[in-house]
Amino acid sequence: MAQAVKRLFPDVKLGIGPAIDKGFYYDFYRKEPFTPEELEMIEEEMKRIIRENYKIERIEMSKEEAKEILKNEPFKLEILNDIKGDIVSFYKQGEFIDLCEGPHLNFTGEVKFFKLLSVSSSYWKGDEKRESMQRIYGISFETEEELRNYLRFIEEAKERDHRILGKKLDLFSIHPEYGPGLVFWHPKGAIIRKIIEDFWKDIHLKNGYEIVYTPHIADISLWEKSGHLSFYSEYMFPKMEMDENRAYQLKPMNCPFHIQIYTSKLRSYKELPIRWAELGTVYRYEKPGVLHGILRVRGFTQDDAHIFCTLEQLEEEICKIIDLVYFFLKSFGFTEYRVFLSTRPENFVGTIENWEKATKALENALKIKNINYEIDPGEGVFYGPKIDIKIKDCLEREWQCSTIQIDFNIPEKFDIKYIDKDGQFKTPIMIHRAILGSLERFFGILIEHYKGNFPLWLAPEQIRILPLTDKYNDFCQDLKKKFETKFRVGIDLRSEKINKKIRDAEEDKVPYMVIVGEKEIKENKLSLRKHTKGMLGFFTLEEIEKKLNFEIENKM
Amino acid sequence: MAQAVKRLFPDVKLGIGPAIDKGFYYDFYRKEPFTPEELEMIEEEMKRIIRENYKIERIEMSKEEAKEILKNEPFKLEILNDIKGDIVSFYKQGEFIDLCEGPHLNFTGEVKFFKLLSVSSSYWKGDEKRESMQRIYGISFETEEELRNYLRFIEEAKERDHRILGKKLDLFSIHPEYGPGLVFWHPKGAIIRKIIEDFWKDIHLKNGYEIVYTPHIADISLWEKSGHLSFYSEYMFPKMEMDENRAYQLKPMNCPFHIQIYTSKLRSYKELPIRWAELGTVYRYEKPGVLHGILRVRGFTQDDAHIFCTLEQLEEEICKIIDLVYFFLKSFGFTEYRVFLSTRPENFVGTIENWEKATKALENALKIKNINYEIDPGEGVFYGPKIDIKIKDCLEREWQCSTIQIDFNIPEKFDIKYIDKDGQFKTPIMIHRAILGSLERFFGILIEHYKGNFPLWLAPEQIRILPLTDKYNDFCQDLKKKFETKFRVGIDLRSEKINKKIRDAEEDKVPYMVIVGEKEIKENKLSLRKHTKGMLGFFTLEEIEKKLNFEIENKM
Repeated sequence: MAQAVKRLFPDVKLGIGPAIDKGFYYDFYRKEPFTPEELEMIEEEMKRIIRENYKIERIEMSKEEAKEILKNEPFKLEILNDIKGDIVSFYKQGEFIDLCEGPHLNFTGEVKFFKLLSVSSSYWKGDEKRESMQRIYGISFETEEELRNYLRFIEEAKERDHRILGKKLDLFSIHPEYGPGLVFWHPKGAIIRKIIEDFWKDIHLKNGYEIVYTPHIADISLWEKSGHLSFYSEYMFPKMEMDENRAYQLKPMNCPFHIQIYTSKLRSYKELPIRWAELGTVYRYEKPGVLHGILRVRGFTQDDAHIFCTLEQLEEEICKIIDLVYFFLKSFGFTEYRVFLSTRPENFVGTIENWEKATKALENALKIKNINYEIDPGEGVFYGPKIDIKIKDCLEREWQCSTIQIDFNIPEKFDIKYIDKDGQFKTPIMIHRAILGSLERFFGILIEHYKGNFPLWLAPEQIRILPLTDKYNDFCQDLKKKFETKFRVGIDLRSEKINKKIRDAEEDKVPYMVIVGEKEIKENKLSLRKHTKGMLGFFTLEEIEKKLNFEIENKM
Repeated sequence: MAQAVKRLFPDVKLGIGPAIDKGFYYDFYRKEPFTPEELEMIEEEMKRIIRENYKIERIEMSKEEAKEILKNEPFKLEILNDIKGDIVSFYKQGEFIDLCEGPHLNFTGEVKFFKLLSVSSSYWKGDEKRESMQRIYGISFETEEELRNYLRFIEEAKERDHRILGKKLDLFSIHPEYGPGLVFWHPKGAIIRKIIEDFWKDIHLKNGYEIVYTPHIADISLWEKSGHLSFYSEYMFPKMEMDENRAYQLKPMNCPFHIQIYTSKLRSYKELPIRWAELGTVYRYEKPGVLHGILRVRGFTQDDAHIFCTLEQLEEEICKIIDLVYFFLKSFGFTEYRVFLSTRPENFVGTIENWEKATKALENALKIKNINYEIDPGEGVFYGPKIDIKIKDCLEREWQCSTIQIDFNIPEKFDIKYIDKDGQFKTPIMIHRAILGSLERFFGILIEHYKGNFPLWLAPEQIRILPLTDKYNDFCQDLKKKFETKFRVGIDLRSEKINKKIRDAEEDKVPYMVIVGEKEIKENKLSLRKHTKGMLGFFTLEEIEKKLNFEIENKM
C-alpha cells in the first residue's frame, strides 16, 4: 500500500504501517484526508504492484546509511533515532524501500484478495501535540470467499452500530461539548435500562443478595487507604479541593464504600456470607482516543456486588455466582461463552497458601458446574485469582462482561473483621463480581446484538395501534387504554395511509402492530402484524394478550 | 440566664443571646462545656432572680461610655464596634447590665415557666477560625401546661430522632471522615428506598411521565450557560480540572441535562407536553453547621421532573402535578398540608404578561383542586412563580417537600424551541417539580413520622418466624420458603427463650411475628402477633397472606 501511495502521491510522507489483529494500516502525513476515489486509485495501483510480482528483499545496513536513504522521510528518521543498536533492516520491492523489522512475504504476487476499508486521522505517536496523520486501513485474505465474508461482516456490523441505531431509535445521546463519554439516556433507552435494573434487582434479592446505595464521591483519604490513589489514580477524575482542608474524588469503584457499611457495626460469623449488590455509577477517566459510543465511556453504572465470606464458603459462593451469571446472560439471548481462569501473577499480595486455596475453589466451582475453561497463567489481579466470562454476539464477536474476582488485599487494608465461632476476630475474604459489567456497555452490546430489534420484554414500545383511517381513531384510543394496563403501547393517529404507518412502525422496530378497520370492528377481532415478519392474522384482544404475555414471560 | 451565669461563674465572658423561633439561647465563652449539674444550678439561680423581681431598665449611652462598661467583655466589645451610630442601648436588672437593642420585659418576675434544654458549642460569629463558645438553649412559656407539653414534645422528638433510629435499625450510616453529609444506605434502608423508587417510577409511568437518566458531572461550560456558576456557585462542589483543558463540576441540579435531551432532536408541538422524570442524585455544598443526619446532606437524590409545555397547557399540567403530589403524600400517611403560592419578586426575568398568566394558571389550578393556600407575595424564584407544599408530621412539625416551579428563564438561556402548528419556532415553558423533595430527606422524615414503625408495605422485614424451641426449626424453615414468595421474611433460629425472641423482634420493629409450637403444627394454624399490639390469634397460612396482602395493597 505504501508503495502505491508513494507512486500516486510522491509528496506524502511515510509514518508507520503495522499488521494488526484484523488486517493492516499505514499512517501517511498529508494535509487532506484521502478521498474514497483516491482509495480506489490506490487499490488499483496495489493490484498493479501485485501483478508486477516484485521480489521482496531484506537489506541490512548501518544507521548512517539508513539516514541517507530516509533523508526525505522525517517520521521514518524519528523512528530510526529511537532504534537501539547500529544495524537496521529495510525491505525493498521494485523502486520502493522501507525501514522495517520484517518479516515480509517473498514476492508482492503472494498477496491475494484485499480491500482498503477506511481512512481516519491519528496523531503521530498518539501525541495530540504532534502532526495529524492519515491512517488507511485495509484487509487481505487468501481466498475471495474469506474476503467477501469479511466485507459482509463489516457491512452487518455497520448496520448494527449502536451509535447509529441509538440515534435513529432515540435511545441515548452523548454531548461531547459538555463531557465526552457521559451518557444521557433518553426515554426509550431509559425504559429498557429500567426493565434491566428491575429484573436485576429482583433476581438478586431472590438469590440472597441485599441492595445497598452509596455516594459517588469520597474524601481522598478513603482512596489513599484503599490504595486506589497509588495503583489507579491515572483513571480517576481530578480532585475537588475544598476550603475545609479536604479534597474529594469521584469513585472509580464501589468496593471501599461497601467496606464502610461492613465496618459500621460488629460482624459475626453468623452473618456470613454477606452479599451486597449495588447499581453503582462510577467515573473513570478513559483516554479520549479509546472512547467509543456507549461501549467505552467515562461514567457508567456497574452491576456490582461484593461478597464477604470465609475461605470455606468460597467454593459454594463461586458456584452460586456462576449460576447467576449464566442465568442472566441466557436471559438476554447469549448462549455462547468462553471462560478464563486467571492465576497468581508475579506480583501478588496474600499468602501462597491462600492463593492456592482460592484458585482451587474457583477451579472446583467451574468443574462442579461442568464448564469448559482456559487458564490464563499469571493473569490474575495482584489481589487475587479471577474468572472472566466472555460472551459471543450474533456476529461472533466476543465481549467480556462478567468477572468474578477474589480479593485478599482490601479486607486486610481496611482491617475488617468478624467474630468467629471460637470468639476470635478473623478477616473475611471478599469477592468482587459483575455480571453485565456496566449497564451502558451492556446496553451497547444488546443494541448491536439485537440490531435494535429488542425482544418483547425489553422493547420500549411493544405494540403500536394503527387505525386504517381517521374514522377508527376513537375506537383505537379505547383499545390503547385496554392494552396499556399490561403493555407499553403507542398509537399512530396521523392522517397517513396505512402503508406509511406500517412502514414507520417497522422503521421504529416496534415488535407488534395492531391494525383496526371496518372488518376488525365488525368481527371483534384485531389484525396483528409482527415486525419484519408481516401479518400474523386475526385475533381477539385476549388471544393477543395471551400470546404477548407468553413471549414476555419467556423473554423471547 | 446570663445574669445567673455571671453570678455563678464570674470568669465566663458573654457572647450574644437572642430569642429564637423556639425559645432562646446565649453563647458564653469558657473552656469546658457546662455540665448537666451546672445547668441545674443555673436554673435555680434564674428562679431566684425571677423571685427577686428586678425592674428591667433601658439605658442609652454613648459608645465611649459603653466601652468603659464592657471593658472586661471582649466579645461584647467586638459587637459594640460593629454597631453603627453613636448611641447604644443597655438593659439593666439588679447588678447585671447587658448591651442589647431590646425590647425586654419590665420585671424579671414576669418570666413564668422555663427550662434549660441543652448545651452545644458554636464558633464565635459562626467562624471556624474563632473561639468556640458554649451555647445554652432554653425555653419559656406562660403556663406550666405549655411547658410540660413542650418538654413532652422534645422527649417524643428525641425518641423519633432519625439518626438514633437509623443506627438502631441499621438503616443507614454517614462516615464524616470520608465526607460529611454523604449517605450510605444499608440493606434495610436501601430496601425501603427501592420500594419507594419502584412505586414512584410506576406511578409516574402511569401518569404520562417518561424516565430518563443523566450523568452526575458536566463540563463547566454547561454551568456557565445555565447560569448556575453565577447564581449558585457557592453551593457547588469545586471544579475538577482536567489535563485536556476542561473542568468538570458535579451537578447541583438536573435541569440542564434534561434540556440537553430536549435539544438532541427537533421537537414539534405534537410532542408537548413532554414530562421527563429522573431520580437524579445531585451534590450541593452545604455549610458544615447546617448538616443534620440525612435531613440536610450534601449528596441527595431528587425525585425530579421537568415538564416542557405551552402557556396554554400550563393550568392542566399544574392540576395533574397537584393530583400526583397529594396522591404520593397520602400514600405515606401525610394528610395535613399547608400550601403557598409565591408571586413575582422584585428581580425577575421574562415579561410581566407571562408572569401574570403563569401565576393565574397556578392560582386557577389550586382553585380547581379546591385547595386552601396562602400567598407569599414576591417570594417566587427570579425565573418564575411557584407553589410549595408543606406537610405536617405526627408531631405537627412542618416539612417542605413538594415544589412546583414555573421557569421562563432556562428555556430562553438554552434557546430551546418547538415547531408550532403555524410552522413557527417557539420557546416552551418549563416546569420544575419534586414531590418527595429528596429521597434522603424524605426517608429521614418518614423514620421520625413513623418512629421507625414502618407500615407493612415499607417494612424491611415484614414477618419474623419464631420457633418456640429448636424442635420446630425445620418446620419454620419450610414455612419461611412459603412466605418468602410474597413477603420479606426473617427467622429467629437461636436457642433463646420465646420471650427473648419476641422482645428482639419488637425491638427490631418487625410488624408481624409468626410463632410456631406443638399446637400450631397439630392444628395447622399459626400464632400471629403484631408489633406493639400483641397476640392477634390463630390463623391459617392463607388467612395471614390475605390479611397482609390487604394491608400492603392499602398501604396501611
